[in-house]
Amino acid sequence: MKIIHSPRHLGHSGHVELMNGQVVPAFEKPERVAMILRAVGERQLGPFMDPQAHGLDPVLKVHDADFIRFLSTAWELWTADGRDFPALPSFWKAPGMRSIEPESIDGKLGHFSFDAGCCMVAGTWDAVQAGADIALTGVDLISSGENAAFALCRPPGHHAHAGTMGGYCFVNNAAVAAQSFIDRGAARVAILDVDYHHGNGTQSIFYARPDVLVCNIHADPMQEFPYFLGYADEPGEGPGEGFNANFPLRWGTDYEGWGAALDAACARIEAHAPDVVLVSLGVDTYKDDPISQFKLDSPDYLKIGARIAKLARPTLFVMEGGYAVEAIGTNVANTLEGFEQG
Amino acid sequence: MKIIHSPRHLGHSGHVELMNGQVVPAFEKPERVAMILRAVGERQLGPFMDPQAHGLDPVLKVHDADFIRFLSTAWELWTADGRDFPALPSFWKAPGMRSIEPESIDGKLGHFSFDAGCCMVAGTWDAVQAGADIALTGVDLISSGENAAFALCRPPGHHAHAGTMGGYCFVNNAAVAAQSFIDRGAARVAILDVDYHHGNGTQSIFYARPDVLVCNIHADPMQEFPYFLGYADEPGEGPGEGFNANFPLRWGTDYEGWGAALDAACARIEAHAPDVVLVSLGVDTYKDDPISQFKLDSPDYLKIGARIAKLARPTLFVMEGGYAVEAIGTNVANTLEGFEQG
Ligand SMILES: [Zn+2]
Ligand SMILES: [Zn+2]
Repeated sequence: MKIIHSPRHLGHSGHVELMNGQVVPAFEKPERVAMILRAVGERQLGPFMDPQAHGLDPVLKVHDADFIRFLSTAWELWTADGRDFPALPSFWKAPGMRSIEPESIDGKLGHFSFDAGCCMVAGTWDAVQAGADIALTGVDLISSGENAAFALCRPPGHHAHAGTMGGYCFVNNAAVAAQSFIDRGAARVAILDVDYHHGNGTQSIFYARPDVLVCNIHADPMQEFPYFLGYADEPGEGPGEGFNANFPLRWGTDYEGWGAALDAACARIEAHAPDVVLVSLGVDTYKDDPISQFKLDSPDYLKIGARIAKLARPTLFVMEGGYAVEAIGTNVANTLEGFEQG
Repeated sequence: MKIIHSPRHLGHSGHVELMNGQVVPAFEKPERVAMILRAVGERQLGPFMDPQAHGLDPVLKVHDADFIRFLSTAWELWTADGRDFPALPSFWKAPGMRSIEPESIDGKLGHFSFDAGCCMVAGTWDAVQAGADIALTGVDLISSGENAAFALCRPPGHHAHAGTMGGYCFVNNAAVAAQSFIDRGAARVAILDVDYHHGNGTQSIFYARPDVLVCNIHADPMQEFPYFLGYADEPGEGPGEGFNANFPLRWGTDYEGWGAALDAACARIEAHAPDVVLVSLGVDTYKDDPISQFKLDSPDYLKIGARIAKLARPTLFVMEGGYAVEAIGTNVANTLEGFEQG
């Protein structure tokens, strides 16, 4: 399958995050893509291609205009205060506080975020735009008849809400792509999010819509980030009721439990009869992931790919998380190879 | 006037905060109280006394029970994970996320906070309890006929909501004291918050009530923490409408502008005819405060004290912020001396 990649993700480098009470280099780092490139190249899963520029209009179909304006100007405002180090939010809203965008960049960072892990550096906005273009180029490929494509997006996207960044995510690449499929005539899209963390942004964006089914398999938010969304009792709302399905699993889950949830999610997707399946591909379910607590092993990703192939729909893989740099390439390549052989 | 102090605040030491994208030692530190003790002692503004224990019942009159349970157990849960360094929240809620208390201590820290500046260490909860007792002992003194008292609370309290910590604050000492005055028969209380930062917690706790008037003079939240509350158009709600008054002022305000706001706030308080005035005394309005942007000079605090004295009501001063350690003692002592001479 075609693999869409851009070196512009490298601009999003040197960022940090608040973890365990300390500011540390972010686990979400450029080496992740380097290792994926190496593994998929080695196995000749390509060919590779550059993304096409699509502009911001398709991004603004799922994101608030003031949020995108903020993302595009945040670094400039941060450095205008004389700061040359990474920008990290520090302040949020207590219940009952007002949703007002402050003048101050420190206030804006809090207004448009929900954690201290969405750090911006000089090249972040360019990398984010490239990521959206990569996902949209994947939509181009599927729309022109390809059976599958891999959008090698970085930074990831599934935690980003319509108006809020968080969890390393700025623009929700998968949501932008799903909306683009709808805008090009798809009647129904299914998003299967297999990242270790709940895709709170993706769920939130499509929560009231029946055209985009969102299925999430992830760590129980009682135990794990994002903590405040991703519970089993979130079925969608209004016309979207019945079109959101969460499969939270406890820490320590191995492929036996995880695969059962995948079967259930796939059954739900089959019932939706989507024109296209979009896979939010995170491999932080891996047993040695440094920030995660599931127990999947590298051969399991072959099974994941094969199960997704059995859906027998045009499939766009969009890269999300996975922080075990030494294994991320193998695990991604296994998923794609399992799909192609499946 | 009697000054209530306890060395138990020293247990809240060695904590940190996220500022400018870096974890740094908190500006809110024990040296603040040391310098206040020195200055008020030198001028013989005392006598000093220890607080009386009042238990948690008066605290639970203004705070949620689950929040107080969290505060009392957070350090134990944090260290049960094997961590011996200060606990700092990292994750909050995007709009649309759910208000669920997670099992995980990292999730709980986010659920019960609104910034990365409310750091807990081993002695935090004990210091917080002592602070509430200090404020309540001040209520005892005023209730037994004293004209004024100074509750030397630390950590401060005015940013703490009923169920949320933030801005160095855990329990809202001023709100606990105001409620205690009401419970002991006061018909009307006025809280005058002169801290540089808006007292969002105090406003929030009494926002729908007519018995406790809350007046805040502070930096415009468009420019300054807490950013999402403290605007001029927040008059109170329901039966509390007309009983909240905000005086936001721009960065760079000196005593000319600040004193005019004080006059306006005092006029509002006189109209309320309170049985008691409670002053949330922050001196981070000082020109050399390291995290603030007002231009008050030390002699101005004599004028503040004198203006408050002109209200001619029993007055409880409750310590809030002020981070210029070298001047905090002088500025607090000036306020109290201005009051006594005024
Ligand atoms: Zn993840
Ligand atoms: Zn303050």
